Amino acid sequence: MDMLANVVEELGRVSENPSPEAVGRMMKLLRNVFFPNLYRETAPGPAERMVAAILEEQTGSRDTADAFVAELPAIRDLLYKDVAAVAHNDPAVTSIAEIVLSYPAITVMMHYRVAHSLLEMGVAMLPRMITELAHSATGVDIHPAAKIGEYFAIDHGTGIVVGATSIIGDHVMLYQGVTLGAKNFSYDSDGRPIDKPRHPILEDNVTVYSNTSILGRVTVGHDTVVGGNVWLTHDVPPFSRILQTNAVTEPIFEHGAGI
Amino acid sequence: MDMLANVVEELGRVSENPSPEAVGRMMKLLRNVFFPNLYRETAPGPAERMVAAILEEQTGSRDTADAFVAELPAIRDLLYKDVAAVAHNDPAVTSIAEIVLSYPAITVMMHYRVAHSLLEMGVAMLPRMITELAHSATGVDIHPAAKIGEYFAIDHGTGIVVGATSIIGDHVMLYQGVTLGAKNFSYDSDGRPIDKPRHPILEDNVTVYSNTSILGRVTVGHDTVVGGNVWLTHDVPPFSRILQTNAVTEPIFEHGAGI
Amino acid sequence: MDMLANVVEELGRVSENPSPEAVGRMMKLLRNVFFPNLYRETAPGPAERMVAAILEEQTGSRDTADAFVAELPAIRDLLYKDVAAVAHNDPAVTSIAEIVLSYPAITVMMHYRVAHSLLEMGVAMLPRMITELAHSATGVDIHPAAKIGEYFAIDHGTGIVVGATSIIGDHVMLYQGVTLGAKNFSYDSDGRPIDKPRHPILEDNVTVYSNTSILGRVTVGHDTVVGGNVWLTHDVPPFSRILQTNAVTEPIFEHGAGI
Amino acid sequence: MDMLANVVEELGRVSENPSPEAVGRMMKLLRNVFFPNLYRETAPGPAERMVAAILEEQTGSRDTADAFVAELPAIRDLLYKDVAAVAHNDPAVTSIAEIVLSYPAITVMMHYRVAHSLLEMGVAMLPRMITELAHSATGVDIHPAAKIGEYFAIDHGTGIVVGATSIIGDHVMLYQGVTLGAKNFSYDSDGRPIDKPRHPILEDNVTVYSNTSILGRVTVGHDTVVGGNVWLTHDVPPFSRILQTNAVTEPIFEHGAGI
Amino acid sequence: MDMLANVVEELGRVSENPSPEAVGRMMKLLRNVFFPNLYRETAPGPAERMVAAILEEQTGSRDTADAFVAELPAIRDLLYKDVAAVAHNDPAVTSIAEIVLSYPAITVMMHYRVAHSLLEMGVAMLPRMITELAHSATGVDIHPAAKIGEYFAIDHGTGIVVGATSIIGDHVMLYQGVTLGAKNFSYDSDGRPIDKPRHPILEDNVTVYSNTSILGRVTVGHDTVVGGNVWLTHDVPPFSRILQTNAVTEPIFEHGAGI
Amino acid sequence: MDMLANVVEELGRVSENPSPEAVGRMMKLLRNVFFPNLYRETAPGPAERMVAAILEEQTGSRDTADAFVAELPAIRDLLYKDVAAVAHNDPAVTSIAEIVLSYPAITVMMHYRVAHSLLEMGVAMLPRMITELAHSATGVDIHPAAKIGEYFAIDHGTGIVVGATSIIGDHVMLYQGVTLGAKNFSYDSDGRPIDKPRHPILEDNVTVYSNTSILGRVTVGHDTVVGGNVWLTHDVPPFSRILQTNAVTEPIFEHGAGI
Repeated sequence: MDMLANVVEELGRVSENPSPEAVGRMMKLLRNVFFPNLYRETAPGPAERMVAAILEEQTGSRDTADAFVAELPAIRDLLYKDVAAVAHNDPAVTSIAEIVLSYPAITVMMHYRVAHSLLEMGVAMLPRMITELAHSATGVDIHPAAKIGEYFAIDHGTGIVVGATSIIGDHVMLYQGVTLGAKNFSYDSDGRPIDKPRHPILEDNVTVYSNTSILGRVTVGHDTVVGGNVWLTHDVPPFSRILQTNAVTEPIFEHGAGI
Repeated sequence: MDMLANVVEELGRVSENPSPEAVGRMMKLLRNVFFPNLYRETAPGPAERMVAAILEEQTGSRDTADAFVAELPAIRDLLYKDVAAVAHNDPAVTSIAEIVLSYPAITVMMHYRVAHSLLEMGVAMLPRMITELAHSATGVDIHPAAKIGEYFAIDHGTGIVVGATSIIGDHVMLYQGVTLGAKNFSYDSDGRPIDKPRHPILEDNVTVYSNTSILGRVTVGHDTVVGGNVWLTHDVPPFSRILQTNAVTEPIFEHGAGI
Repeated sequence: MDMLANVVEELGRVSENPSPEAVGRMMKLLRNVFFPNLYRETAPGPAERMVAAILEEQTGSRDTADAFVAELPAIRDLLYKDVAAVAHNDPAVTSIAEIVLSYPAITVMMHYRVAHSLLEMGVAMLPRMITELAHSATGVDIHPAAKIGEYFAIDHGTGIVVGATSIIGDHVMLYQGVTLGAKNFSYDSDGRPIDKPRHPILEDNVTVYSNTSILGRVTVGHDTVVGGNVWLTHDVPPFSRILQTNAVTEPIFEHGAGI
Repeated sequence: MDMLANVVEELGRVSENPSPEAVGRMMKLLRNVFFPNLYRETAPGPAERMVAAILEEQTGSRDTADAFVAELPAIRDLLYKDVAAVAHNDPAVTSIAEIVLSYPAITVMMHYRVAHSLLEMGVAMLPRMITELAHSATGVDIHPAAKIGEYFAIDHGTGIVVGATSIIGDHVMLYQGVTLGAKNFSYDSDGRPIDKPRHPILEDNVTVYSNTSILGRVTVGHDTVVGGNVWLTHDVPPFSRILQTNAVTEPIFEHGAGI
Repeated sequence: MDMLANVVEELGRVSENPSPEAVGRMMKLLRNVFFPNLYRETAPGPAERMVAAILEEQTGSRDTADAFVAELPAIRDLLYKDVAAVAHNDPAVTSIAEIVLSYPAITVMMHYRVAHSLLEMGVAMLPRMITELAHSATGVDIHPAAKIGEYFAIDHGTGIVVGATSIIGDHVMLYQGVTLGAKNFSYDSDGRPIDKPRHPILEDNVTVYSNTSILGRVTVGHDTVVGGNVWLTHDVPPFSRILQTNAVTEPIFEHGAGI
Repeated sequence: MDMLANVVEELGRVSENPSPEAVGRMMKLLRNVFFPNLYRETAPGPAERMVAAILEEQTGSRDTADAFVAELPAIRDLLYKDVAAVAHNDPAVTSIAEIVLSYPAITVMMHYRVAHSLLEMGVAMLPRMITELAHSATGVDIHPAAKIGEYFAIDHGTGIVVGATSIIGDHVMLYQGVTLGAKNFSYDSDGRPIDKPRHPILEDNVTVYSNTSILGRVTVGHDTVVGGNVWLTHDVPPFSRILQTNAVTEPIFEHGAGI
């Protein structure tokens, strides 16, 4: 396997990488920027300047840092819409503060929306480290390169995977364990897998229930509901409802027999 | 969307919320109370008093704090039964200490049983923060309002979701990725989703295998086994066995073709 | 339930257990040993000696500590092959460093390969604590007793479970939510579940897609692809392709109806 | 030297001692009890209960813990008088908060007054650990057994030593580097030094300037000022002023010659 | 005593004060700004921006923060001259790095010169907290309001006190335990001590040896050496040498008699 | 001033220095090696191996690390004698554990004896960083190059300075604020001060009381007592007793007049 030689060679070189601790501190500061009445370790203005300083250090570019800070109000608006979407989709919610403080959805989306913004500015490595922080904390893995519209909601979240070339419209809701994945891919002449569109497109107003896998560059039409535990690898027209074919039920003759 | 206006308004107000650090410290002290021979940072008696002090501070109520401490022996008894249930269901167990120290099940149940007890006393916000701590650490998300009987067992756990109005009997075992979720819900005149019974009831002696989703206010009768990867949205009589209909198997003609 | 008496009795005894903090420090040092150009908190030579010291302290055996250090180069070789396997299977990879720094796969495999090596040397308790660290951080739960070949790849990982008696060949790829589990087991005369082979065997070149459950001592033949969301409890011949039978699609007549 | 045999013997035995970390936490909580408007990590009520819990754990006695908490208002009154004394003696003070937040005097006196109270209740080991914490932070070493009246002031403090049998009246001010020490002592038949009154008595309204040493069981009468750099080993009547005899001044003939 | 009423009243009000943790972080960042080749936690440019952000937050003024950052090169030049002065005065120095990394002098002067600069800009409370940090770490207490010239050197430092209205010229060296203090002061009609010039003036090229106390608004002329353990309360002309009058020596007749 | 050019030049170069955090961790491990029954974070055997690993990393030399570990029993014997000397000289001692846990003397001597041993092996920079750690914690500054005999005792310690070329015999006791310093020194042709013997020699059985300064290469003969606040710059024969000439006492005519 040629790839092993690459691994040995690349890991044999000294490399300079972003510091995970700095990334963690930056995300904590951003909580103060986005939700200044809930998190008050640092005032929003100074927090923005510290974020800029950390970004400048980790990327080596002051322009990038300043450009990112200029994006913060827009990211905040998107995040508030995500909060609204969660509130809209969960009857157990008792207050907006509860969503921000104890729903993984907001942790996930804050990390994703920040990482996506940085990736669009051409920042390397950092965006993936940011989403991986959220992945480790919540079990939700959204690639920073995925495109996600407004009012995106997830509930419990654990096990959700959204691949790098996924495109998600507005008002989409994903339940736990949903995969938007790739089915297969081909290799270039150097044996490296080719990075081309290979993940699903979900149009507006799509809901996907728990543990369903949608794979490949398929399009799920708008205003569609996909039930749970479905394995979906083909296009779906708008206004559809997809369900797993019924499971069989048998009586148990021996008590406690297992399955 | 009206909900966004709510979000902006509520997040624009200064609010006083429990401290996540204090919650974390309280849960660490409770380990010493429940398992004094395994965790010995703090002696059980003083640990209880510190728990009471933290609770008083975070809830603003000394009565609540004292009432909770009075509940600790009962919670401990429930936890020990959960430990016994895990031991009963996993042949890989080599000692009881191993379960407490390295099975996520005990982390999950300690947080859930404490949070449920606090919720029953009328404490706000704190219970959800407590279960979210366990969710982040283990990938298991049990809503503190769910009702769970004795001898509850989970194994690896990741991805389990138990919704707020679920009712679970005694001797129930859930494998990883199982969802006890809601199918749908309606909205009140203000556009807020209505909180009413919408999650499943599992009677005594039910086992649910990995990645199965059970949705809506359905009842799974006692002494039933639900196989894995099943999408279940209807009632099941006692003594049943539910299985996914068989998958199809085809020969692969091209080696390495993907799916 | 007799098991409860065991629980109460065993937890009533004072016991001496490994320190989770020491285990965490050891794993952090091992990052420096395996990837000295990416993690540079401690030079590799001294890091090895500190690892040995921690192991000696936690196991009480200097011989074990020295034997483990002698295994480190072999574990490192296995890890580099796992890195190569991830690179081979994900088109989104932009550099090898990115894999090590931001893919949970490497966290998982570093913990598993270290824990498996210690378990083979007869070390108790510690191996499970090590894999549980990775489980908590990544949502992937691989039992240290499982046997896993070379070039093992997982991608997002969350929800993967690999049971204690699983046997996995070379060049195997598991997607998120895959369970290699047990179907049932019997009890000995003391009411303790019997630990015997009860998890699947996956031969070389097997790929299993997201959320599939494979249960029991079944063999999945080499060069096989198992699709996602499949419930598989029987043997599969080599060169197979297993798919969930198709889900049904219905038009939605009422907009926003849920499922 | 017989004492070495004692050292080897006593250090060869396993002993159970208070935890320095717990002591540090307790003192931090007490800041919240004494100065609730300046330090707000913990509300005063819960802080008192946590202090009680820590004390119970470290001393093994709940009675001691409760008795100490009952003393807190009295200790607080004494501390406020010490703050007033500092304000009275330093023209550089701009606010009372400044004294509490940035004068070592208050750190010193909070530790001493707490330690002295515990020592009077018969608590062993802990009082010395508490004053040593302040000694390390401020360079001021007041033995918990010393008796100190009201309105005690120190300014910069570094180097002040107040021995175990010292007795200090009200309105006393000590500048930096002042020693209230012992001149000599005798040994018992086992070769251990005998603990009897051997440090000075300072009556009310005494001020001692920097770097002066007062040694032995001498009495400095009330309303007396002792200048700096004096070596004083005899009694002084009330209303005295003690000065070092004048230093000699010589012209320097060679520039930069040193001394 | 009226002052006690003030204390009780002021401490009874809620007040907003700078965070000691933030101050500590700021000083750590400044090490990276001043000595970028020795401390490399943060690159100098970003470190400056983070310092500005912390200052803005703690003082509530962005102008102050920006003004302070503009002063940093000047402060750095002064600090380097202090380093040179230490190197000039200690034969035990083996490298400049050794001075910065292991001499308290540089810790002291970095904190003093930063605090003095902030005080001159009119910042309240913060300067005293900064110098008190250095006081606690080194035992050297220099009031931020004191004026100190270039090439200031201290050696071991412990116990040095430099009062608020002291004026120190260039090329001055103070040994450990030296006090530049006040002798007395008067009170205003409210019973508050009056803040007017009351500490010594040391002209250029003055050296003061260990444990000497110089008190009151006296002037020590340039090119003067003051020996150790002197109590000095009067003016000294330039080019002087001041010594303690000789101590008496007596034979000891009884061995081990003490003093 | 040429020295400034040196400072600017040397600080302008990137340099690799020992990590203060690593030094701190090493000293904490050594507490476990020297006092295994009082500090039990790490077992003595593994603690020694970790110390060796840290030393190897910080010095870059495995031989040095191994040589130092071989010295540990000898250092421990010296430390125990220092503990015995403290016990012999302080009637307030209630147990040996109290000395180790709450007397700065043992912190000081542990750091000095370790640093001195490393310096003798030719290790650079590290020894000064080690003694500076103790200096900051205790206010006692003993240069690692000083030579100190057995049974060395200090009591409160703050402000003690022992210069680099000092030589101290057995059974010597120094009280707080004592300086063993240099009087003057000359410069080489490059303007660097020359490092030659310039600090005092104290023979066996010498006691020096508080705040006394002994300067220059003078010899204090054995069995001598030097009183406090003395300025001593000449040789003293054995069996001497040195006292400050008496201070003058005057009646105070005006109450509260200051000095």
